[in-house]
Amino acid sequence: MTILEIGDYLGHFFDSVELTGGGECEILAPARIETARRGEVTFVANDKYVKFLASTEASLVIVHHSVNVDEFIHKIVFLKVNDPYSAFVFLLQKFATPRTIAAKGISPTASIGQGVTVGDGVSIGAYAVIGDQCSIGNNCVIGAHTVLMHNVVVGDDTSLFPSVTCYDGTIIGKRVIIHSGSVIGADGFGFAPQKDGSYVKIPQMGIVEIGDDVEVGANSTIDRATMGSTIIGNGVKIDNLVQIAHNCRIGDDTVIASQAGISGSVTIGRQCVIAGQAGLAGHLELADRIQVAAQAGVSKSFLQPGTALRGYPAQPMRDQLKHEAMLRSSGAMKEKLDRLDREMKELKDKESMKSPA
Amino acid sequence: MTILEIGDYLGHFFDSVELTGGGECEILAPARIETARRGEVTFVANDKYVKFLASTEASLVIVHHSVNVDEFIHKIVFLKVNDPYSAFVFLLQKFATPRTIAAKGISPTASIGQGVTVGDGVSIGAYAVIGDQCSIGNNCVIGAHTVLMHNVVVGDDTSLFPSVTCYDGTIIGKRVIIHSGSVIGADGFGFAPQKDGSYVKIPQMGIVEIGDDVEVGANSTIDRATMGSTIIGNGVKIDNLVQIAHNCRIGDDTVIASQAGISGSVTIGRQCVIAGQAGLAGHLELADRIQVAAQAGVSKSFLQPGTALRGYPAQPMRDQLKHEAMLRSSGAMKEKLDRLDREMKELKDKESMKSPA
Amino acid sequence: MTILEIGDYLGHFFDSVELTGGGECEILAPARIETARRGEVTFVANDKYVKFLASTEASLVIVHHSVNVDEFIHKIVFLKVNDPYSAFVFLLQKFATPRTIAAKGISPTASIGQGVTVGDGVSIGAYAVIGDQCSIGNNCVIGAHTVLMHNVVVGDDTSLFPSVTCYDGTIIGKRVIIHSGSVIGADGFGFAPQKDGSYVKIPQMGIVEIGDDVEVGANSTIDRATMGSTIIGNGVKIDNLVQIAHNCRIGDDTVIASQAGISGSVTIGRQCVIAGQAGLAGHLELADRIQVAAQAGVSKSFLQPGTALRGYPAQPMRDQLKHEAMLRSSGAMKEKLDRLDREMKELKDKESMKSPA
Repeated sequence: MTILEIGDYLGHFFDSVELTGGGECEILAPARIETARRGEVTFVANDKYVKFLASTEASLVIVHHSVNVDEFIHKIVFLKVNDPYSAFVFLLQKFATPRTIAAKGISPTASIGQGVTVGDGVSIGAYAVIGDQCSIGNNCVIGAHTVLMHNVVVGDDTSLFPSVTCYDGTIIGKRVIIHSGSVIGADGFGFAPQKDGSYVKIPQMGIVEIGDDVEVGANSTIDRATMGSTIIGNGVKIDNLVQIAHNCRIGDDTVIASQAGISGSVTIGRQCVIAGQAGLAGHLELADRIQVAAQAGVSKSFLQPGTALRGYPAQPMRDQLKHEAMLRSSGAMKEKLDRLDREMKELKDKESMKSPA
Repeated sequence: MTILEIGDYLGHFFDSVELTGGGECEILAPARIETARRGEVTFVANDKYVKFLASTEASLVIVHHSVNVDEFIHKIVFLKVNDPYSAFVFLLQKFATPRTIAAKGISPTASIGQGVTVGDGVSIGAYAVIGDQCSIGNNCVIGAHTVLMHNVVVGDDTSLFPSVTCYDGTIIGKRVIIHSGSVIGADGFGFAPQKDGSYVKIPQMGIVEIGDDVEVGANSTIDRATMGSTIIGNGVKIDNLVQIAHNCRIGDDTVIASQAGISGSVTIGRQCVIAGQAGLAGHLELADRIQVAAQAGVSKSFLQPGTALRGYPAQPMRDQLKHEAMLRSSGAMKEKLDRLDREMKELKDKESMKSPA
Repeated sequence: MTILEIGDYLGHFFDSVELTGGGECEILAPARIETARRGEVTFVANDKYVKFLASTEASLVIVHHSVNVDEFIHKIVFLKVNDPYSAFVFLLQKFATPRTIAAKGISPTASIGQGVTVGDGVSIGAYAVIGDQCSIGNNCVIGAHTVLMHNVVVGDDTSLFPSVTCYDGTIIGKRVIIHSGSVIGADGFGFAPQKDGSYVKIPQMGIVEIGDDVEVGANSTIDRATMGSTIIGNGVKIDNLVQIAHNCRIGDDTVIASQAGISGSVTIGRQCVIAGQAGLAGHLELADRIQVAAQAGVSKSFLQPGTALRGYPAQPMRDQLKHEAMLRSSGAMKEKLDRLDREMKELKDKESMKSPA
């Protein structure tokens, strides 16, 4: 792919694409700026990487229109856009070799249940198990050892990596990616306490519904609803080892980072960001575009869209940072307090000396 | 199932079951009060749901004896008991269709080792692997792709969902449920540090013993003991993504929520509740009925039964809440301190003006 | 194995091994001191276990040279070394029966791809799936249901327990142990935010490289790099349910305990210890021998080797403990402040009475 072809390709995504030099050079691969060599393309999206322009051997560097590159145009061709990071991501997609999750067609060792519907262009890997009455859309890829229990619906163009487990009744949208080891639709954690201290299991009769364009990382768990559906909206991105409990509703385009835990019956709005190891208590609600910091513990609802939360119990970022600064100043407060105490003692001593005996 | 039949069924569990209307109506399904329709049964166990009585279309609602339902008996039949939540759970069990974890009988693709004992009425799913000398009790269900290594014992009426892994020597009780992806009996995390900074692995020669009526969620891990057994008591309920390290002993009917972590050689009493993302440091002991709040970090033993713990390091709830309130008041303290400081300065200024030069 | 033979065996590891009695007695098993019986060997490495010497029935006890055992030598033979714990670990290794992860040879139900290289003495379990162009070293053991996608390289003497998943291109060193359910090489969590609030997936084109003598626990996840490699150094020990995100570099002999999470592009030095449930934010660096306490949240780089970190945001142990002590003293501060306030009021009242009206 020549520099010129790259410019044309990115022109489909960006209004203004500007090249600072000749476009004939063949670009073979993308690379990080620290390690890029001749024939490779890289990018600068962050000011602190500008310093690498002096040393990089890259042939093509994608930068923002505002970056002054005059001193390097003798050795590097620059491609200027208004979002160099996204531009590079689109290029990565162009260079990425399509991954073979399972060979074309249905493996002879896959176990296919009764009444299963399989679309066109589907690949099903070795030892995959597809339960009765499942429906698999066109161009889906089901990895080796993945298990769909009964009545699972998988939309078109969806990829399940090896060793995913979907419990009965799970509904998965289109263009979804689920990574290995994730378990979709296991029983919610519901038990009714009895007088003798033991528990009676509450049947978990609902399902999980996953929207379109969702990605679920490795070894995450999304539990089925007690009744009705646990709902993962369109475009939701879930990292590894994430827990989503029964009856949750996750809004479209919300992102949940690794090891975060969402308790039962939580409703999260659209375009929220839940950072790593954060926890949300049960039955609460978050408005759209709320951001929860790493390791925060959210114990109540926040209904103001766009609020950033931090701490335990979590509160709005500004309040929490002020609170943390206050706590950090407690040493100074203690010193001031001790000084005042001494001064008070001196004053009172003087006072008592002046007072008539 | 008619309303009358439901009343009779619940009469087996509760002393006093009272119906406010005719019992001939056929009930087809349970539902949440917000979405229930004609022919469905729901419940109110919490005052804040009473408001839905006006709008619900449910034909039957289970409530506590104390709820005043006079204004709704023209449209709804009420069934009154002293624990409407448990009553509804028992009904859910009645309505739940039995789930097919694996088809009846032993799948021809299951791999059965030498010297394996299999009870009556056992189902073993596709590609399950049962190691040598395993013993599987009556009416067990072993899901597709579940692996039992050698010498695993599974009690009667136990269900292992697809893709569970039990290491060699694991002993599982009766009526146990283990969800997909959980790993029982992997090596404890034990290494002896050497002078050169490297580690020597400590062989993990023990096993895991799981009691009766235990449920383990998806993708949890329970490690084998170094010597002897890691013990999960009867009736213990473990959620998803929980870690229980080597040599732990978990008392009967204790509940451990998602992503909690129990370090090595911890002993937990009976009927404790460990909330989500809580962590317990190694070698400590908790008495019976202790409750650990979400995200708490327990760093020492607590031997007073029934103590509620919270915070990091965790301390009894009352102390911790007082401590947190104190910290929240530090802004007010700072203001008071600054005011006192000004007042002191004024006083001293006056004093120095009065003093002879 | 007689006591004398045990002494000879440990003589290979320790300079000075001293026996306090006859060496003919046959030792049948290792045990914990509380439960050890005649014919068994145990150890004391911690002063608080010395009290058990009076009651233990063990025939042989390994202790440090400095322990005074005179009053027990009539009933116990002592073996004195300068590191009784490591000595006992070496003995455990001697007594441990080798575990059968998979029967010798390649199971007829294993699925072996095209162009696969398999070394001598390899065992591959039932239904294991080995992708095209994989290379498996001598004496490796691949458990049942383990999946290697294409182009995976496994070094000599490495053991993968059942149901491990390695994505394409993963490189694993020699003498590595990976426990069940772990997923190596899944896609890093990388998405480019778009103006409409949705995300575009960033192709994860790199791989994971795992060094020699590494152990990975159950259900952990190590993500592939975006470009290049996520690197796990030699001798690294990783517990269960640990998350290591894309582009991380973990230094040799570093230990990471259960449920810890390492965000993307983090560099950790050699011989660090990351305790349970700790979290590291993205793109930071830790020097060698840094210790991170349980549940700590590390939000920036620490470049001083050997620093111990604690708290959220994490800071050096001494500062953090001082800070925590200060916070715990806030009750006393508040009391002092209130007393000063009263005294000030009294003083000012007096003052105003003295002042001319």
